[in-house]
Parts: sequence; structure tokens; C-alpha cells
Amino acid sequence: MNPATSPLLTDLYQLTMLQGYFDRGMEETAVFELFVRRLPRTRGFLLAAGLEQALDFLEHIRFSPEELDWLRATGRFNAHLIDRLASLRFTGEIHALPEGTPFFANEPILRVTAPLPEAQLVESRLMNILHFQTLIASKAARCVLAAPGKLLVDFGMRRAHGAEAGMFAARASYLAGFAGSSTVLADAMYGIPSFGTMAHSYIQAHGNEATAFEHFALSQRDNVVLLIDTYDTEAAAHTVVRIAPRLREQGITIKSVRLDSGDLLDHSRRVRAILDAGGLNATGIFCSGGLDESELQRLNGAGAPIDGFGIGTHMDTSSDAPYLDCAYKLQEYAGVARRKRSEGKATWPGRKQIYRSFSAAGQPAGDILTLESDPQGGKPLLKPYMKNGRRTAVAQPLDQIRRRTREQLASLPSPLARLDPAYEYPVTVSDALRELAASIDRGEHS
Amino acid sequence: MNPATSPLLTDLYQLTMLQGYFDRGMEETAVFELFVRRLPRTRGFLLAAGLEQALDFLEHIRFSPEELDWLRATGRFNAHLIDRLASLRFTGEIHALPEGTPFFANEPILRVTAPLPEAQLVESRLMNILHFQTLIASKAARCVLAAPGKLLVDFGMRRAHGAEAGMFAARASYLAGFAGSSTVLADAMYGIPSFGTMAHSYIQAHGNEATAFEHFALSQRDNVVLLIDTYDTEAAAHTVVRIAPRLREQGITIKSVRLDSGDLLDHSRRVRAILDAGGLNATGIFCSGGLDESELQRLNGAGAPIDGFGIGTHMDTSSDAPYLDCAYKLQEYAGVARRKRSEGKATWPGRKQIYRSFSAAGQPAGDILTLESDPQGGKPLLKPYMKNGRRTAVAQPLDQIRRRTREQLASLPSPLARLDPAYEYPVTVSDALRELAASIDRGEHS
Repeated sequence: MNPATSPLLTDLYQLTMLQGYFDRGMEETAVFELFVRRLPRTRGFLLAAGLEQALDFLEHIRFSPEELDWLRATGRFNAHLIDRLASLRFTGEIHALPEGTPFFANEPILRVTAPLPEAQLVESRLMNILHFQTLIASKAARCVLAAPGKLLVDFGMRRAHGAEAGMFAARASYLAGFAGSSTVLADAMYGIPSFGTMAHSYIQAHGNEATAFEHFALSQRDNVVLLIDTYDTEAAAHTVVRIAPRLREQGITIKSVRLDSGDLLDHSRRVRAILDAGGLNATGIFCSGGLDESELQRLNGAGAPIDGFGIGTHMDTSSDAPYLDCAYKLQEYAGVARRKRSEGKATWPGRKQIYRSFSAAGQPAGDILTLESDPQGGKPLLKPYMKNGRRTAVAQPLDQIRRRTREQLASLPSPLARLDPAYEYPVTVSDALRELAASIDRGEHS
Repeated sequence: MNPATSPLLTDLYQLTMLQGYFDRGMEETAVFELFVRRLPRTRGFLLAAGLEQALDFLEHIRFSPEELDWLRATGRFNAHLIDRLASLRFTGEIHALPEGTPFFANEPILRVTAPLPEAQLVESRLMNILHFQTLIASKAARCVLAAPGKLLVDFGMRRAHGAEAGMFAARASYLAGFAGSSTVLADAMYGIPSFGTMAHSYIQAHGNEATAFEHFALSQRDNVVLLIDTYDTEAAAHTVVRIAPRLREQGITIKSVRLDSGDLLDHSRRVRAILDAGGLNATGIFCSGGLDESELQRLNGAGAPIDGFGIGTHMDTSSDAPYLDCAYKLQEYAGVARRKRSEGKATWPGRKQIYRSFSAAGQPAGDILTLESDPQGGKPLLKPYMKNGRRTAVAQPLDQIRRRTREQLASLPSPLARLDPAYEYPVTVSDALRELAASIDRGEHS
């Protein structure tokens, strides 16, 4: 069983509920919406991501004979449930925000319209996919905004939370504007450009730093990036200057040096001066080591002579906000709007749509959250992606999603684009939606 | 290509370094150690976890024809590298801390002894596996220590960082003492007991709460846990009391009720009183909703009448400390000890061992970090697990690892077992190790 595709990657309660639904013939159309209740304190907006993987999951979900046998052997479920699971496919509709769309609290990023058991079963994994990619795309967008024009590379797979997190982080950060990732498999599977240099162990194994640099350059020839902080950064920069002529004779240029420790502002200035004095004006400086968007902003603001950054752990774990308060809630069943009223967790009922208004300059100016049946001015953000369990269009190439995301980030009003979210983007709940919620609370729909 | 098993789930620099190593015939024995440089501010100890999956990865690593074709097609690598990768297997030795062992800063949790290219290639994924499971086991251990005797269940898959994170979190938390997980696949693949109730959508789909409760009970019969906070928690508790006799007539008892919102201390007391007054003294109270170890401690300390807890997001993301400052460093190559001296990141060189002393009461009293060649008193913690690329013993059953972990947690000195890590456990670096580091710094090994 493969966790990435197995329908058993779900919460047990989904299966116990399905047994209840099937036992009672509760298979009418349900509408669930996935949204974020509150944004993390350090986020002014979020960036929707993960839709492609969510659609893949829905299109291919099915129980294998092995999985059905296992369920049967547990003795927990009745034969009717197992029979129904054997033929279960996702046959519903999906509406969603296009990947790369900025969104705000309480705005649905995905709506599932399907027979109740199907819509229920897929909750856990749908959220698992969309939550994480949205989390990372939102964090990566902050890095992109903090370091305009710099080359940003995802370095985080080793400390991402498992294999899929490493892959999804490479995808979500690329989508948000990163140039690529150090993760080779993200290139092989998603076509994301891969970047890489050398580790300290390479230098250490050679004993002598100059020898390590020369061996690496001769073996690589193109794309020579030398890591210079293993022992003494400035001494290593002088070594680079010293070996450069010999390499040049063999047609090899040193593309850049990498710093991975110490005060990067200070070191980058000293190293830039050493390289320039040695005639290596074209050799760039690439930095890594515990970076996040605040450090990028600090270095950039101080005019550090750094051409690119590898961002690892802090991005791949979204370390300042490692989760989103997202929910997947039943908004309508059998044609009747539903509302959860738990303390602090009440939801807006019904099938919803978001309408976004734009300023004359094309910047988002405000959203209206309302019912699908209550059209408003502005651009509707939720689009249809799936009908009868099949995609309604072919998957968009990732580069195209990336370009659209870049346009959207570029059009953000400047207070939203700042790292410190002092500005709350206006999201208005329509009168129609308020009235529906109130009428449910008065018991008019039970 | 499957991210969980593909050797391409690595950083590009591993492949560029391997090309360099193969080009120069640098294939002598390397020793790498994986350790955590500094503990997160909120951790007094960490719990080693993930070794089983790390060993699986090492035993099965190989490049498929498809992966080799892809590498060739990139045009980035020379034919010699591709040829060598085609036949690459892990042929080395592994020493490691048994899973569930408490450990501290700078103590190796895994040592790899293998030809340099093999030991280098596996760095990224080894760290990806061990970092995350150790992170979660350490967080889960805090929950276990904060709520002694309570039933703790992992509820976090939906907000874990991808599919593998959900699975590994279920495993790591079970290992640390949780009773099980809501993730069905963790039961199917790891034999971890699965727990589940119902979602709010189940109540909402029925419109009427009492009907939803009865239908669920009749469909489940055993293991009836009713979620009572969809609308009004205390009203729902009265409903539970009202329907209980009818269910009892059909041989069904209500095992427990679940609260998922509001002030759980206040609600649990009110609900306990309502259940008791209604004769449902045997019906337990299970709580969930944004819980972490601090909240567990608060509820437990206040004597909340709660029998079990579902811990989700905060555990599966280790939200207060979502990463560890871990490193995988070359400590010896071709028989010569190596040392990285980067600012703030200097390492202790050589092949190391940890010796742990115990008090008369069997509590860990202090560790000595030294060279393998310098035996000390106390118990050596690193054990051999793999030789010539094969396990030296069969995998231990998870339940056995879990029992051993429980013993280790029970034997922690009380200041370490507190949530607030006011106490720094003594780890002494031996004279032999200090002298080796100093001699490398004096250039005696280059």
C-alpha cells in the first residue's frame, strides 16, 4: 500500500461514518468547502496551492483487493460497507481557486459537490494535500517578496516532514516564484529546475581546500559553485582567486561561491571585495544557512552583495507558522444548507462564491463572500475543475501556473506585500449569506 | 518514481559530489555521523526514532533503469557516474541509538561507515527520515509525560506535512507511548491501533442531533463515541442521556462522548455531571481540538474529568519547534579524522560513542561523549544495526520498541520529565575527543 495513493490514508471516523451513511441510504448530494478559519498572525494573505495533486487523488481513488481484504479482516466493518467501498469512485464536482491565487480567512479554496459518502471519505487526504502546499506557497511568497530579483532556491528537503513534504515543498515554492530546488526528484517528476553545489564533506574529504576546489571544477566544468566556509571564509575566497587562472586556462569559469555560516552581510562584503580585487567580478555570491524571509529582507535592505539564496528548513516547515487553521465543512446536504455552530468554530453555510474587486491599477481592492446563487460585481474566483469525477480540462503546466502567480503577487497592494501584515484586506460577507446563516440558526432549515 | 523509495529524492549536490569522487577514485571508507547541534529551547531531551525506516531505505536503495535514463537525459552527468550509479548498493555499516532512546545535543544518533560515495549519497533522505520521526517522538513524549494514565490518540494526519508525515507521525507518537492513531493506514501498514468517532458533518447531515446519535450507535453497536459539540454541548449531553435507555434495550452502550471546542475544563465538568446524573457513569469523556502538551497539563492539573485526548496538528507538526538543528557530518575519511570548523557549526571529529551513567535508582545521571577507541564507564548507547549493507538482526516489533521507550521515559530524572526544561542534562566531552579536535585544528592530520 502506498500512502500517497491509498484510500486508507484517511481517518477511521470517515469509514465509520460511511458505514452509517450506507446503512441509512444517506447518499444524496453533499456540498463541503475547504477554507482557513483564521490566518496565522504573521500572514497577511495565503496562496492557494496543491490543486493538481488533489485532483489526481480524486480521479484515481479506489480500494484495491488488498485494502478491501485488510478492512474485512479487521472485523470492524459490515459486509455492506466493504461491498460499497469495492466499487467506490469519486463521481462529483470540484470548484476551486486556481493555484497561486491569494486568498483570505473564511474564503473557500475548494468546494466538493458529490454523494455524501464520497465527499466525506476524501476529507482527510484532500486537506493533507491542500493544507501543506498552501502553507508552503504562502511562506515562499513571502521570501519572493522580501528578495525581489534574487535567485531563490529550495534547499529544505532534508528537514521537510517526510518524502512527500520535500516534493510538495519544491513544487509549492517553485509555483510561488522560486527558481528551483536542490531536490533532484522534483526535477524528474515535476520538471522543476534543480540547483546544487557541494557539501562541507567534499572539502573535508580532500583535506586540502584548494585541491577540493580544483577537483570539483574539473569534474563539473559547467556550473562550478564552490563552498568556501568550511574552515575560514576569507582565506578560501583568496584560494578561489588563486586557482581561477589555472582553471580559466582549461576553459572553466567559477560561476559563484557559496557561504553557509557566520554573518552573511559581513562575509559577503569581504568576499565580494576579495573576488573583485582578484578580477573575479563575474563570480557570484550565493548564500544559505538558516535563512528565512526576515533575514532575506535584512540582507537585501542592507545592500548585501548576494546574488542568490538557498532557503531550506524555515521554508519547508513554514517554521514561524507550521500549520493553518483549515477546515472542511458540510455546507449543504440534500438541497438544505447546513451550519456548524460549535464555539469559536461557527461556519458560513451554503454553496459559496468569492467576488474580487480590483482598483484602476489592477490591484485587488476587496472581496465579497456570498452564495453562488447571489452574483455580485467583481471577478468570481472559484472555477470549475471537475465534473462527474473527471477533470474538465487538462492539467495546466506548472510554469504557466507560476507565471500567473507571479502576476498576482506583483499586483498585491503594497501593505499586503509587506512581511509585517499590518493591513487587513477587506472581505465582506454578503447580506444573503448572513440571512441564510441567521435563518438556519432560527431553525428554519431543520 | 516513488518519492519514498527513489534515490533521486536527494540533493543535486550529492550527485555532483559523487561524480567528483568517482572521477578521482575517492572511494575509501568514510564515517559520517548524524546528530542535533542544539536542542530547541522548549526541549530538555529528544527521543531517537525512525531507525527502522532508515535501515529499510539503506537496504533497498538502487537506481531503476527509468531513473538512470532520466539522469542520462539531463546531460548534466558523465557516463562514468551513470554506470557507477547503476550498480550502486549500500554496502556499509550502521551504528545507531535504539529507537526510543533519550539523547542530547551533539550526541550521534546514527553513524554510517561506508565507501565515501555511498555514505554521501544517502545523507539527504537519511536525515529526512530520522529528523522527522525524532521530532515527533520527542513532541509526543512530552504529551505522554503531561498526561500520565490518559488515553492519547494521534489525530493529526490531515494537517501533517504530506502523506508520509501523517504515517511517520502515527508511528513516532505510538512509539513514544500514544495508544494509537486515527489514521487507518497506520493500522494497515504498522499495526498501530486505530481510533475514530464521527465528524460534525455526520450530525449536520442528519439535521437532528438525536437521530444522528441513534443512527450512529445502531450502525456501530460497539465502540460508540458520540460527538456532542456541533450545536450546544450541554444540550447534546442531555440528549445522550435521553437516548441511552433505548439503545441499552438493544444491547448498545455509549462508550464515550467527544468534546471538540470551547473551554474543555468547564465543558467536561458540566458534561460529566449531566452523564452521572443520567446514570451514565461508565460513559467516558474524550476531548480534542487544538490540544498540545501544555493544555494537557493544564487540564490534567485542574483535575478535568477527561479520560482521553486526541492530539492532532500541534503534535504532527511539532508546532512549537517544527524542526531540529540536525547535521550529517564527515568525521573520518580514509582513516583520518576530519573536522568542520565553520563559524558556530564546528563539529567533534572521529568515530564516537556515548556512555551513559545511571543513578542507583536507575535514572540516567550523565553522558560522556568520546571516541569509540576510548571506552568509558557506563552503558555504551550506539549499537550495531547493519553490516555489509544488511541488517545484523531482524527488525524489532514496534510494540517492543514502545515498551522499551516507556521504560526509558519512566526512568527520566524528574527535572527532565517536566515540560519546562529548566535542567540541563550533563553531557561531558572526553579528554581524548578534545585532544583529537585540537590536534586537527593544529593541522596534524591534513
